Parts: sequence; structure tokens; C-alpha cells
Amino acid sequence: MARPASLSGFPEFLPEGRIVEQRLLAELTTVFELHGFASVETRAIEPLEVLTGKGEIDKEIYAVARYQGEGADPDWALHYDLTVPFARYVLEHAGHLNFPFRRYQIQKVWRGERPQDGRFREFTQADVDIVGQDQLAEHHDAEIVAVAAEGFARLQADLGLPPARLRVNNRKLAEGFYRGLGVTDTGAVLQRIDKLAKIGPDRVATLLTDECGMDRAAAQACLDLATISTTDESFVERVTALGVSDPLLDEGLEQLATVLRTTAATGVVHADLSIARGLDYYTGTVMETELAGYEKLGSVASGGRYDQLASDGRKTYPGVGFSFGVSRMLVPLIGDGAITATRSVPTCVLVAVDSEDTRAEAVAVAGQLRARGIATEVAPTADKFGKQIRHADRRGIPYVWFSREDGDQVKDIRSGDQVATDPQTWLPPQEDLRPRVHPVT
Amino acid sequence: MARPASLSGFPEFLPEGRIVEQRLLAELTTVFELHGFASVETRAIEPLEVLTGKGEIDKEIYAVARYQGEGADPDWALHYDLTVPFARYVLEHAGHLNFPFRRYQIQKVWRGERPQDGRFREFTQADVDIVGQDQLAEHHDAEIVAVAAEGFARLQADLGLPPARLRVNNRKLAEGFYRGLGVTDTGAVLQRIDKLAKIGPDRVATLLTDECGMDRAAAQACLDLATISTTDESFVERVTALGVSDPLLDEGLEQLATVLRTTAATGVVHADLSIARGLDYYTGTVMETELAGYEKLGSVASGGRYDQLASDGRKTYPGVGFSFGVSRMLVPLIGDGAITATRSVPTCVLVAVDSEDTRAEAVAVAGQLRARGIATEVAPTADKFGKQIRHADRRGIPYVWFSREDGDQVKDIRSGDQVATDPQTWLPPQEDLRPRVHPVT
Repeated sequence: MARPASLSGFPEFLPEGRIVEQRLLAELTTVFELHGFASVETRAIEPLEVLTGKGEIDKEIYAVARYQGEGADPDWALHYDLTVPFARYVLEHAGHLNFPFRRYQIQKVWRGERPQDGRFREFTQADVDIVGQDQLAEHHDAEIVAVAAEGFARLQADLGLPPARLRVNNRKLAEGFYRGLGVTDTGAVLQRIDKLAKIGPDRVATLLTDECGMDRAAAQACLDLATISTTDESFVERVTALGVSDPLLDEGLEQLATVLRTTAATGVVHADLSIARGLDYYTGTVMETELAGYEKLGSVASGGRYDQLASDGRKTYPGVGFSFGVSRMLVPLIGDGAITATRSVPTCVLVAVDSEDTRAEAVAVAGQLRARGIATEVAPTADKFGKQIRHADRRGIPYVWFSREDGDQVKDIRSGDQVATDPQTWLPPQEDLRPRVHPVT
Repeated sequence: MARPASLSGFPEFLPEGRIVEQRLLAELTTVFELHGFASVETRAIEPLEVLTGKGEIDKEIYAVARYQGEGADPDWALHYDLTVPFARYVLEHAGHLNFPFRRYQIQKVWRGERPQDGRFREFTQADVDIVGQDQLAEHHDAEIVAVAAEGFARLQADLGLPPARLRVNNRKLAEGFYRGLGVTDTGAVLQRIDKLAKIGPDRVATLLTDECGMDRAAAQACLDLATISTTDESFVERVTALGVSDPLLDEGLEQLATVLRTTAATGVVHADLSIARGLDYYTGTVMETELAGYEKLGSVASGGRYDQLASDGRKTYPGVGFSFGVSRMLVPLIGDGAITATRSVPTCVLVAVDSEDTRAEAVAVAGQLRARGIATEVAPTADKFGKQIRHADRRGIPYVWFSREDGDQVKDIRSGDQVATDPQTWLPPQEDLRPRVHPVT
């Protein structure tokens, strides 16, 4: 075939970028497993009825059909998130699961988006959810926010990702507030408030009065509510000062205050009363995340509480979860060169080969090093040593090993230092053992 | 929705099974990286022209199209293996890769199979390949066989998978042999020989005489060749004894002998001259793998040399690779209960909660344990201790932690032993830290 063109919206990493992604996923996996979440993978394909039942039905989905099939209407499609398939998995396997069931899930998802600024057609998400049977205690909302915060703290400390700002709200708070103002169609108000960042307060106020039939004072109160943002529980006082009261509002305030109280120490969690989240299925806590310096990306990770997503008619499965937008964060960060790996291969040592007759000896040395956990390649061609060093250099392999009649030598090709050594005992410094991931400053 | 039914051909693991799969993939990843292979993931979707250009075009593929699209003919499909997309990746990104390029790739693939005994529509493969630019030295064939053998040795030693039998052949050997017998359409003969296991020697002999126009002696020589199987280089003598000579045969014998010589020490590699591999793109070394006691599954892992898979018209990219059929091995092994995990969750410790008022203290203890690498959950409900122990027991969590006025205690719920302890210093035995995977005997 001719040299293929890339498919717009389907990002693929070069090996260096993939090392960054692997490392990020390993960090998140560590956090999830330390908190007792078990890994689940669901099939990529779901019946259309599963995907269109709930959730982002405005997202275009990709239908799947056998190419050599009979041309029947496709009734399968690729999943567009990991929450809806997980709800299906829980219903299907409920008899074999223990509740509350804690799972994480790292997979690709597909959306038929028009690929423009930051919109992907295929992208990786890392989700973490807790699902109960018929009930799920509220303290799990704070737990999920804490896991999300710990994940971002670790990505910042270990990989140099920009600091995260985790913005939390509660749907009951907003809904109760609107009710307290006498609004009946609270969803319509929420929809307009959700446009605040995009179109500004004046135009939202106009929508609220013209389309939702609110008076100017009530519209202003809604806008005032949405501007409240605090890093502790003080948002409660500020809401109370707006003089609206409703039992659902009180419940929302109480729940959000608990989340803030439990996670204040992380330093990354904010109460932000403008957060609405477009998704139908959220019923309480909602979260969005921005990365400092990358606010233009919008929310790179989000989640919330969903009390009615999964039900088989007899039992319901309320849940709370969070989704890290892995591609959404990494594609721009790696593309900008903001974060990179120290080399493009796992290899720590290249064993030189001075003639094809001695390849077997080089292979034996490599085996000895590997047996001690050191990633090692044997030079593909017997060549002048200068050429073998360039081979290592191009890949960022830090050490070249020479097996000689008079004993083995290893060269650090960065410093040029070369010392006599032995494959049974030599160890590289810990920081050279594997590629490291670091921010570019 | 009502309780959903499973989709036939789309296997999904329960959490215990997924732990086995994760562990198997981690073992293979370790082997691949120790040998200097870099991870690559390619998009799941390829243009149809990429997928139908080469390879298993008899496999039904799944076409993909936007559900809300204009009804235009789909020109995209899901990849059905990882070799063809990797060849496309190499062509597309050649300017950014260093050759020989060594990569591994672990992803799901899809085939529109009729789901019957062991045939899946979605399954996971773990591939490892070395690709050169315009040339690739022959010693890489032996290297790939060695990596495959090391992978299986490790799965047997660490996870208790059944012993593997890695059967290797060389297409040049068979093709040269047929040529030496005067055959011109060697592919037609290979196709009939490939049916040997399925229909037996008598019927293959009939096909060779009736359909390929061979005389009985020549047909018998082909059958004799296909029955040769040795664990060392002695196959060379046995082929020579058949009295056929051809330069391509000599080349094939030499290449296969090198592979056997280099990998004999692994104890799992066999020269098996019946192996043909249906795929068009193989040009030299070919490999198949059976698991002892699971021969009915057929080949669970396979690969070979492909000299012409990728070319952009100016340069060609010859390669050699191997693919572990992860689902093909694990779905039956886990389904039979032949291999399992010691627990269904990563969690090592459940911190009990005696009243909701003290949840914050339990959360703090859990944080201390996690900071020291111990996977810990906090009990979801304040309950009688017996109920909390049952909660742990159902998941296989080995330890329950009690924070009390008079000091902390930790109970091994398997032995019932309970001792005074401290979250700053306590460590479980190494073998309890993570779930272990083991064969069921």
C-alpha cells in the first residue's frame, strides 16, 4: 500500500508517548487497587438498546455490522463511555458480584464526533465506580472524590502533570434552590446555567427570564448561586445568605459539605456551584476537573452520583463514579512536548556484537542481565563499535556492553565512562533501570 | 432495562478471572520489555482497504459506520488481528521509528465468526514483532521463537499454565521440497498438507494425486515430510534421507536448524514439518503452539516471518512476529476452573467501622496502610463485627482491622488469629499482599 494517512480523531502515540501513557495508567491502577477496586473489562460492543437507553444519546455512536452480512439493520454499536456498559455488566452478572461492588475499568471508547479541537473519535478513559444493590451510603461520594484527588496528586508528583482543580457540586443543591424560588421545570433552568461559561451571565439571565419565565430577581439569584466557589465548607453560608430555603436544598448543602470536609486536606477539591454536567443520569454529587494552564481543554475528568442508572425492574443499582479522560489529558500534553520519557524503548543495555560468530555469546550475556531484571537487547548487526553506540543513542539506551576476550566492559554512552564489569553482578543506577517520565521545563 | 443476556462470542470475565488475565498480561509484558520491545497501541478502526489488502480476508470483519450518518457505504472496519494494523502503523510513522523496530501490542480484536467451540467475536491478543527497513537479519527469527518460549515458560512457572509445545517450521523448507519433486503450484500442495490433522494422511494423499496431479510416490514423500517432528536439529538428516534436493529446501533446512539450535535449551520448541499456517503473508519461519491437555483448543499462539507484508512502494518492511492468543488460552482455562486467583479483589485489609461516628478514624487508618503499599478498604456500613468479617470473607480479603480505644488489632480471618498492632508498622506476609494466581489441583 502507499504510505497511509492518519485518520483524523484517532490519536496514536509514538513509542515515547506510549511510555508516558503506560506510566500514567500504572499510577492510576496503583491508586485504584490500593483503594480496593477490582479491574473489569467489558466488551466494546453493546446492543443499541443498551447504549441509547440512558446517557449521552446526543453523542453520535458507531454502529457495527458484519461486513459480509445480509445487510440487515445493525443493532450493535461501539460503547461511547464506560459507565453505561458497566451498568449492563452489573445487571448481567449481579448474581456473581458482591455489593457494594468496587471496580475500575480502563478501555477505549468511540464517539462519532467531528474531530475538532480536542474532540476524539477514539479515546481512552480510566473509570472508577462503586455500585450498591438497592442502596449505597452517601459516604461513598466523598470516597470517590478522595480517590480522584489522590489520583491527580500522584500524577502531579510522579509524572509532572499540571496541578488539577477538582470542582464538585451537588445536583440536589441546585434543584432545591430553584424549587425554593418557585421553579417547577428545574432541568430547564439547569440547562441554561450550564451555558454560563460559554455565553456569560447577561445572556444566561435573558434566557432564564425569556425562556424559563423567571423574574429578574430570581434569575439573578440563580446566577449568584452559580458564582459561588470555595475550597472549604464556607459555601454553605454564602448560599444561605441568598435567602432561599427548601428541604432538597438543605440535603444538597449537607452532602456537598460532607464531601468538602472529608477531602479538604487534598488541596485540590473545590465546591463550585456552577458545575451542572450535561448527563441525564446524575442525581447528586457531580464533578469536573481542569488542569492548570490547560483550562482551554475544558473538563479532563468528571463523574458523579447516579441513583437510577441500572435497574432490572426488581432491584436498582445506585452508584457513584469518576472518569479520568486519559487521551484528553495526554494527547495535548505529549503533543505540546510538555511531558516526555527519557527514552523510546524499555531497553537499558545494548550488548554489542563484534562479529556474527560471537552472537551466541552476546545472547548469553543478555540472558544473564535479563535474569536479573535488566531490559537488554543484542545489537542487530555486527558492526563497528561507533555504529553500535549510535544505535543505542538514537533510542536513548543508556548503556552499551562489550564482551571481550580480556573481560566484559560496560559504557555509559551519556558520560562516555567505560568500566570493567561482570554480567552476574552489574546493576545500573535505579533511575536508569526503566524509562522515566518527566515534565519538560 | 431487564436483566441483559450475554452476547455469544464476547467473553467477559468476572473479577477473579480478570485478575488471572491481568497477571498473565503483566508476565508477558515483563518478558517483552526485558527483551527491549516497546509498547504500541493502534486504533481499533482501520480503513477497509488496509484490512482487505493482505492477510485473512476469509475472516469476516465488522464494518463500522456512524449510526446517525447518511447511510453511505461504510469504508471503515474493526481490526481482526494486530499484525496488519501494525504494518500500517509502521508505514505511517516510519519517519519517526528506528529500525529494526521492536514492539509489543496487547489489544482486543474482532472477527465476525459464528461463535462455536472456542471461536470468539472479540478476543485479546498479545503480539510481539521485529520489523526492519528493507532488510531484517535471519537471527531475529530465532530471537522471536526464544521470546515466545520464555513467555510460555514463565506462564507455566509463575501462573501454573499447562506446558506449551511450540511447533516451528519453515515455509521455504516445504516449498523447496515440493519444487524438488517437480511441483510448480507449491501453494496448492501446502494447502492440502495443511488438512493433515483434520482429514488424515489417506485422504490428503488422494487430494494430492487427484487435485494436484502428483504421482503416488511424490504424494507419499510430501506426507513423509509432514510427519517429521524432532526436538533438535536431527530433522535435517531425516529430510535429507527422503532424497529430495533443491536450493530453497536447503535454505529452509538451514534456517530452521538455526532456530532449533538457538532455542533447544528452552525444552518447549519442536521442529514440526506439518505446520503450514493458513496465512498468505508468511514467507519463512512459521510457528504454532499447543498447551498440554488442551490440544483440543488447537493452536493458542502462533506467528512467523513475513517479508512482504508492508511496503510503501519505495521501501519494504520485512518482519517476524508472534501472537499469544490470550482469550483463547484463558477463557477455557478459567471457565474449567483450572486456574484461579486467591481472591476477587486487590484488597488485603478491611478496616472495620463500629459506628458511623468513627468512620473518619477508620478512613485515616486505611490511608496509613495504603501509604505503605497495602491495599485497604473501609467497611461500607457500621455493623456487628461478625458481619464485617463475613463481608471480608465473601471477597477473600484476608485481614480485618479493628481500631479500638485500647489500641488497634488485626485479625487473619482464615486462621482466626488476632493480634495487637499499629498501622504505621504492620505488614502482611508478602504472599498476602496481592491476590495470587494459581492452578487448581
